[in-house]
Amino acid sequence: MSLDTDIALANRLAEAAGAAIRPYWRGEIGLEAKGDASPVTFADRAAEEAMRRILTAEVSRDGIQGEEFGVERESASRRWVLDPIDGTTSFVAGRPIFGTLIALLEDGFPVLGVIDQPILGERWVGAAGRATTFNGAEVRTRPCRELSDALLATTSPGLFDDHAAEHFMALARKTAHRRMIWGGDCYNYGLVASGQIDLVCEAGLKLHDFAALVPVIEGAGGTMADWNGEPLHAGSEGHVIALGDPARLEDVVEALACGH
Amino acid sequence: MSLDTDIALANRLAEAAGAAIRPYWRGEIGLEAKGDASPVTFADRAAEEAMRRILTAEVSRDGIQGEEFGVERESASRRWVLDPIDGTTSFVAGRPIFGTLIALLEDGFPVLGVIDQPILGERWVGAAGRATTFNGAEVRTRPCRELSDALLATTSPGLFDDHAAEHFMALARKTAHRRMIWGGDCYNYGLVASGQIDLVCEAGLKLHDFAALVPVIEGAGGTMADWNGEPLHAGSEGHVIALGDPARLEDVVEALACGH
Repeated sequence: MSLDTDIALANRLAEAAGAAIRPYWRGEIGLEAKGDASPVTFADRAAEEAMRRILTAEVSRDGIQGEEFGVERESASRRWVLDPIDGTTSFVAGRPIFGTLIALLEDGFPVLGVIDQPILGERWVGAAGRATTFNGAEVRTRPCRELSDALLATTSPGLFDDHAAEHFMALARKTAHRRMIWGGDCYNYGLVASGQIDLVCEAGLKLHDFAALVPVIEGAGGTMADWNGEPLHAGSEGHVIALGDPARLEDVVEALACGH
Repeated sequence: MSLDTDIALANRLAEAAGAAIRPYWRGEIGLEAKGDASPVTFADRAAEEAMRRILTAEVSRDGIQGEEFGVERESASRRWVLDPIDGTTSFVAGRPIFGTLIALLEDGFPVLGVIDQPILGERWVGAAGRATTFNGAEVRTRPCRELSDALLATTSPGLFDDHAAEHFMALARKTAHRRMIWGGDCYNYGLVASGQIDLVCEAGLKLHDFAALVPVIEGAGGTMADWNGEPLHAGSEGHVIALGDPARLEDVVEALACGH
């Protein structure tokens, strides 16, 4: 398959997921707590099922890994990784800053990623070697000369255990922390790609939470890494940095290492 | 002036503020830090100026108190309280969950409130003795049988000093805290009125941050109070509770009092 074909397929997946989610928006969503206490709704399940149906019909030899329905064809070198609703708590609350995440991994590394916001009709698409687009137009991250200028976002204090929280706070204190942004899940990463936010730092993400973000951020000129500055892949433990200006990566890794 | 006339005027203020804000959206916003380090942009100032121009022309004897340009006619019994952009950090980051807040106070108590989101075209309007509307349609808060079911939102851990944080955490632990929502400023209060969120608890708000919220929440069947359960007015210190189901107010006040 060519990358163009894969991108077209990823767009179709996003459209199918959005069509499955929109009927539930600010309506009866069937909220339940999963075994790990994380929330799931009718919309999460309907959107993942819609994407799986398309993948099974179109690329039957590729692997699929979705948040709600597990892994198929685990040994395939190409694997689609799906998070039907990243930011389920925002979805549940009626805040249109959640997203559908779609990634294609080759040999464990993300080569294609989509962040789709189906209520606002906003979509970021990133692919290896291509410029990231937002609703079809190329976007770029912005420069950040000093870490102290950086607008930092993170979803929740609850992402960090006590140990990670110390490291995170050591970083936060070195940024423009009086303007720090909370909540937002994947939507914040899209805004890094668009040059609106400089830095997102989170912990405890799963592969379906971060895989799609990597091509979006990197195709816009930014960088993603784990807290040691190493590239993210299927085996990463989910402590992630998304940075608009790659020149600040060393500063971020150093600041995170200082929290003791 | 009749309440209908005041509501029509408040709608015109919201429209003028939105028209002033939208040209800056995700563009050159002229971000600065004010004396208290809180952020302000070209859009905040333009929106407040637009609203002040209308008020000065239409209700020249009413008082005006705005976040950016201070108080006029302080002794007037009717006072318009304006926050051109509540959630400036979200605005700066390109997240469409900030809002313009417009309140009318009579003898220090809010009798009319508007929460306007000018990018999404979403507006909540509340007035004493009327049903709150969202884009013209009546909305209602939802019941909450047990505090442990409550979906709780708050904007930032930075709202709370160490003392307030202990009390807040004592409350949060009694709610459905695994689904707790961060970020959002005034937008969360609109979603309480719409029956999407059960509870917002914040500290350190100023009059322009909370005055408009009271008629919106109460006209939808909810209640707003300070952390002691007392009604909010111009002299309140800005520790606020917004609750969809008034039957839970005692539980919330009790839980907040437990943090020692």
